[in-house]
Amino acid sequence: MRSLYFDGEQINLVNLEKPIRLKGESLVKVLLTSICNTDIEIIKGYKGFTGVLGHEFVGVVEDSDDEKLIGKRVVGDINIGCGKCRFCKEGYNNHCLDRKVLGIKDKNGSFAEYITLPNENLYVVPDSVSDMEAVFAEPMAAALQILQCHHIRPTDKVVVIGDGKLSQLITQVVSLSSCHLFVVGKHRDKLDFLKHRAKPILLDEVDSLNIEGEFDVAIDCTGNDQGLKLAEKLIKAMGTIVLKSTYNSDGLFNPTNWVVNEMKIVGTRCGPMDAALRLIERKLVRTDYLVSEVYALEDYEKAFSKKNKLKVIIDIDK
Amino acid sequence: MRSLYFDGEQINLVNLEKPIRLKGESLVKVLLTSICNTDIEIIKGYKGFTGVLGHEFVGVVEDSDDEKLIGKRVVGDINIGCGKCRFCKEGYNNHCLDRKVLGIKDKNGSFAEYITLPNENLYVVPDSVSDMEAVFAEPMAAALQILQCHHIRPTDKVVVIGDGKLSQLITQVVSLSSCHLFVVGKHRDKLDFLKHRAKPILLDEVDSLNIEGEFDVAIDCTGNDQGLKLAEKLIKAMGTIVLKSTYNSDGLFNPTNWVVNEMKIVGTRCGPMDAALRLIERKLVRTDYLVSEVYALEDYEKAFSKKNKLKVIIDIDK
Repeated sequence: MRSLYFDGEQINLVNLEKPIRLKGESLVKVLLTSICNTDIEIIKGYKGFTGVLGHEFVGVVEDSDDEKLIGKRVVGDINIGCGKCRFCKEGYNNHCLDRKVLGIKDKNGSFAEYITLPNENLYVVPDSVSDMEAVFAEPMAAALQILQCHHIRPTDKVVVIGDGKLSQLITQVVSLSSCHLFVVGKHRDKLDFLKHRAKPILLDEVDSLNIEGEFDVAIDCTGNDQGLKLAEKLIKAMGTIVLKSTYNSDGLFNPTNWVVNEMKIVGTRCGPMDAALRLIERKLVRTDYLVSEVYALEDYEKAFSKKNKLKVIIDIDK
Repeated sequence: MRSLYFDGEQINLVNLEKPIRLKGESLVKVLLTSICNTDIEIIKGYKGFTGVLGHEFVGVVEDSDDEKLIGKRVVGDINIGCGKCRFCKEGYNNHCLDRKVLGIKDKNGSFAEYITLPNENLYVVPDSVSDMEAVFAEPMAAALQILQCHHIRPTDKVVVIGDGKLSQLITQVVSLSSCHLFVVGKHRDKLDFLKHRAKPILLDEVDSLNIEGEFDVAIDCTGNDQGLKLAEKLIKAMGTIVLKSTYNSDGLFNPTNWVVNEMKIVGTRCGPMDAALRLIERKLVRTDYLVSEVYALEDYEKAFSKKNKLKVIIDIDK
């Protein structure tokens, strides 16, 4: 099968054997798959992964020992736990120390014609949700994980830092709480997409607006250590910083400030896929405008070369 | 009055005017006052304070416009808010942006014969609590603030990092929750004081004990950036790090780890004085063994020269 294989230095289009499903797993034919910033970070060296990249997908179950799944359109939870450890037993397979992660750790991903995943990782996509919507389920779940880990109240003043593809979803998801919402970014065009859900602020304008220490919650999705630094400036004492950024470097921080101002920092990662599908089905979050380009697998060089675009989709059958 | 004045470079014993109480304030004659690590950090340059140091005290109200207070033994909340801002209005005078802090910011402290404090900052010490116990109320409140900011459950596995004077109080306070409790430190003698409340671990032994990723909660009271780094190693995914350390430097950290492991970091500072007095009155936390030395104000050089001691008390009338 055609696959985009990352050899530790670059991506190549290669032919691999179709994966063989293990007991309890399904074989999924990938329909659409999309590029996430984590893929870009892996190519830069984050995680030291080699294999087929890709973890955002919608596909059709071609074979499974759960007959009810065969022929169904599915999205998938990307974390595969050992099933035996304390985390797995408590339902936190995403924190299993021996976990495999689709396209990220010890498990070939979705930039390929086929993947396998445990049946319990698969979520059937409702008929009213299109393929092009369903491919956003995984990042939508990551956005929802913020609400899973921290209670945002209707009266909170919240700022999302970053205007990229994940920030677009997060801003929309958080806006559903009816909180006061602001979004800070570098790109006027991207911020404009969000203006009906949040007050857009250009990064260059932050200093002149006198909004330091104003926010109950700041959500960093910049993908670099500047996000946490700005979040620290913008939240008020006893405020909460939610971290979404993963990147391949350390940063200089002053935890004394977090102590004196009694700040809370909350790291959050993957989220609930079922909740993501419910939200997509209710059409409360728009994803259509986020699709920048759709490429065939063969056009992977073009797909990965795009800078400052929103979501790049790979259509496996194109 | 005799006072220990820090001029930005060193401490000197000087004669200052007795402070004049403002409307709503009391004049307090200091009986005992004690040295905190924050005092040591201020002398190293933290906060840029100049003035009379000292913020842990027990005293007697000599004059007040609240007649009920006159003659009473009191301890005090060290944060003096403006009374008008949103923080003060919500009862968080400790986070008022214009706050004065006794012996730390814009307000002369308790290494002197007299201080003034707003009446509402004063808490009457019960008769059954001795002066030598009451002088621990302020650091005891700081220990209790951990429980005010984070819920420690009876079944949690908790580690306190540090074996100094604040760690001693924190370990005892946290032990009251009946959680599994460990304390990591560099000093066998200090750790031994806590062995009836927690499992003591020498820092050098940590690597050999295979306890990485084992704890629900790690409490850093080391006073340096190594505490947070060790806490990060010891807690499990979705665990919480409580920060108590304040120090005058930045540290290199990798927030990506906090995101991937969905860690929570909670900064905590000053705490509830009334709760501290209740706890001291109930005799559930021992403070007697923490008193290393008692000096007269005149012996301040000796008092501040002590290294690796526990609590150094200054007896103003000695």
